[in-house]
Amino acid sequence: MSTTVSPLAPKSVPDMPAVEGVRFATAAAGIRYKNRTDVLMAVFDEGTTAAGVFTRSKCPSAAVDWCREHLAAGTARALVVNSGNANAFTGMKGRDAVALTAKIAAAAAGCRPEEVFLASTGVIGEPLDATKFEGVLADCVKRAAGGPWIEAACAIMTTDTFPKVATRTVNLGGVPVTINGIAKGAGMIAPDMATMLSFVVTDAPIAAPVLQRLLARGVEGTFNAVTVDGDTSTSDTLMLFATGAAAKRGAPRINEAGDRRLAAFRKALGELLLDLAQQVARDGEGARKFVAVTVEGAVSAASARRIAFSIANSPLVKTAVAGEDANWGRIVMAVGKAGEPAERDRLAIFFGNIRVAHEGARDPAYDEAATSAYMQGEEIAIRVDLGLGRGKATVWTCDLTKDYVAINGDYRS
Amino acid sequence: MSTTVSPLAPKSVPDMPAVEGVRFATAAAGIRYKNRTDVLMAVFDEGTTAAGVFTRSKCPSAAVDWCREHLAAGTARALVVNSGNANAFTGMKGRDAVALTAKIAAAAAGCRPEEVFLASTGVIGEPLDATKFEGVLADCVKRAAGGPWIEAACAIMTTDTFPKVATRTVNLGGVPVTINGIAKGAGMIAPDMATMLSFVVTDAPIAAPVLQRLLARGVEGTFNAVTVDGDTSTSDTLMLFATGAAAKRGAPRINEAGDRRLAAFRKALGELLLDLAQQVARDGEGARKFVAVTVEGAVSAASARRIAFSIANSPLVKTAVAGEDANWGRIVMAVGKAGEPAERDRLAIFFGNIRVAHEGARDPAYDEAATSAYMQGEEIAIRVDLGLGRGKATVWTCDLTKDYVAINGDYRS
Repeated sequence: MSTTVSPLAPKSVPDMPAVEGVRFATAAAGIRYKNRTDVLMAVFDEGTTAAGVFTRSKCPSAAVDWCREHLAAGTARALVVNSGNANAFTGMKGRDAVALTAKIAAAAAGCRPEEVFLASTGVIGEPLDATKFEGVLADCVKRAAGGPWIEAACAIMTTDTFPKVATRTVNLGGVPVTINGIAKGAGMIAPDMATMLSFVVTDAPIAAPVLQRLLARGVEGTFNAVTVDGDTSTSDTLMLFATGAAAKRGAPRINEAGDRRLAAFRKALGELLLDLAQQVARDGEGARKFVAVTVEGAVSAASARRIAFSIANSPLVKTAVAGEDANWGRIVMAVGKAGEPAERDRLAIFFGNIRVAHEGARDPAYDEAATSAYMQGEEIAIRVDLGLGRGKATVWTCDLTKDYVAINGDYRS
Repeated sequence: MSTTVSPLAPKSVPDMPAVEGVRFATAAAGIRYKNRTDVLMAVFDEGTTAAGVFTRSKCPSAAVDWCREHLAAGTARALVVNSGNANAFTGMKGRDAVALTAKIAAAAAGCRPEEVFLASTGVIGEPLDATKFEGVLADCVKRAAGGPWIEAACAIMTTDTFPKVATRTVNLGGVPVTINGIAKGAGMIAPDMATMLSFVVTDAPIAAPVLQRLLARGVEGTFNAVTVDGDTSTSDTLMLFATGAAAKRGAPRINEAGDRRLAAFRKALGELLLDLAQQVARDGEGARKFVAVTVEGAVSAASARRIAFSIANSPLVKTAVAGEDANWGRIVMAVGKAGEPAERDRLAIFFGNIRVAHEGARDPAYDEAATSAYMQGEEIAIRVDLGLGRGKATVWTCDLTKDYVAINGDYRS
């Protein structure tokens, strides 16, 4: 297991302001690890709305099932996240553990269990002993405060080599509102399967259906556009909470998705989600290079996206990037295997701004030395122009190194 | 690049009998490599029928385009296969090179260019200089003989660590007929992309439409059920030729796919294709373990197959096998991400005969020591029972080791 911070980590961590209406605390419940925080509990003011998007896995964790079920009401009073145990593939015991956790949290926060949202990350298949939360969560509520957010980000880490936070402040109807987010990465740790978890909180007063629409749209080009190894966790969870506390300062209540006053908020939320999602890819296990794959000229945006993922998930493309090789033959392969409309003789392929191939053949003007120099950088942009239509998409990933194999395969003694 | 033979190679090589009606020779045309054979030319007797299946890539090589176009006539007189250059993504020059190769081969073999089939494997994007075949192919025709088949298998190798051959002799209407096959592996070599190529020849007299049906059916559970890294070459080609020479010895001409006399032939062909396909997986780059993934209890065979490939292509599952870890949590993940009907609480997972999980949770009787011992073997069977229906499929793959990353990423100096 790597203990050094990814070379692709952001060079600085932003100052995270408090968000009115949410208080939180972290604790060491001893779920699996000793001497480290493994629980985050957040308490929301009354009237907080909630939205969420979850893994598309057909075998989701018990916590994901719980959140999906209770999100319909659209209100939240508490969030409990633990690391060390994913409570996935734990059958009836898993459902019981989730219900007990929500009950303990509700008693501590003074709300109904249905207003508690849950997420778990860590080992799969081991029963989660929810009785460990007794006392711990009540104590969290007592200690809960408006910060520091970096501690919340640290409490949910598993294989992450750095905590992931982002913040934006934006104008809503003349009143500044804040959006804060934390995330943990898509790394995998033996014999655990890690998970992408992210929680975003704003003090803007936004109705739940509007919040859900904002999140569903915001996730498309951000969290749904990053991949480390194409493997999907049973527990991926992204939730957005709006405490509405900014209403006291005069922020307007937003009840319609089409409300024009939302424009700046929508844009800032998109940026924040992209920031967090890219941090996840930058912390991909063993990653040494951050890769943006852009496909344009496709017959549709959906087609561009599928081709971009075919490239971004290809082991041959990812190992070539690790080897600093501008191997466009493998890009052609990945385009071809996507099964989407593509014409060999119209394809153009770029590394950075260097066109290495066009019209179905190597670009005669392609400068190998310049390309080699480009490939030595930490940030690699691969661009494919299909020359067929106007569909465009970008996805982000990292390279595939021996460290990935070591992290995921070398742990047996 | 590895020069040692894969530990998973078959322990012995079969004696390959001659197949009446086909003669072949190999040559060193200097396509890319020096001092090694890089061309295989086969000459077929008049009346030879042909069938083929090809890559599903939307960006196929020029040779694949050529074969698809000329397969409609169903007759073949010659086959030319070269290694060292894939003639893929070479635009108009690629089409010209294919036409010139067929012309040179046709002149040498005394047939029409349309009766020549072609395959190329090696570097992508470099023009193939077909003038190098001048003289070489004519000389091949002069030297052509009924063996040895192992030389034909060697001539088409790229990253393969061992030549792949298989043979079956079977009764057709009271007369023994022979099926011989060669293949090269799904390895990738820098900066080339390798390719799965396989050529099978029989002396049975079988009409082209029947041959095509036999091949299309035979490939489903064999070549279409192996994966090394999920990446699809631009050039994958599997062709089946029937010289019909056994008719002279009294073998019946088969003109109907439903002909009952075909039963033994169909079975033997299936076995031979499976043998070759498994040899390809056994020679996967960096492979140390051969893995069979069986999914049963799915809602349909197609659903079982998609789930089996989701498991077999998962980097997390493959690195766990490399690490000798019976990590069933990652199997659950791969089942879940396949997007096919699955119910967590009905899943059972086996490594070999050891049931590690059932009914949505770890099997309480599961013996960790026995499982660890099993995972140390060279051949690993993973079995998932979904408990939903009767759909079943098996696919074969290998583990993902650091050597795979080294072979595909470490070649830049």
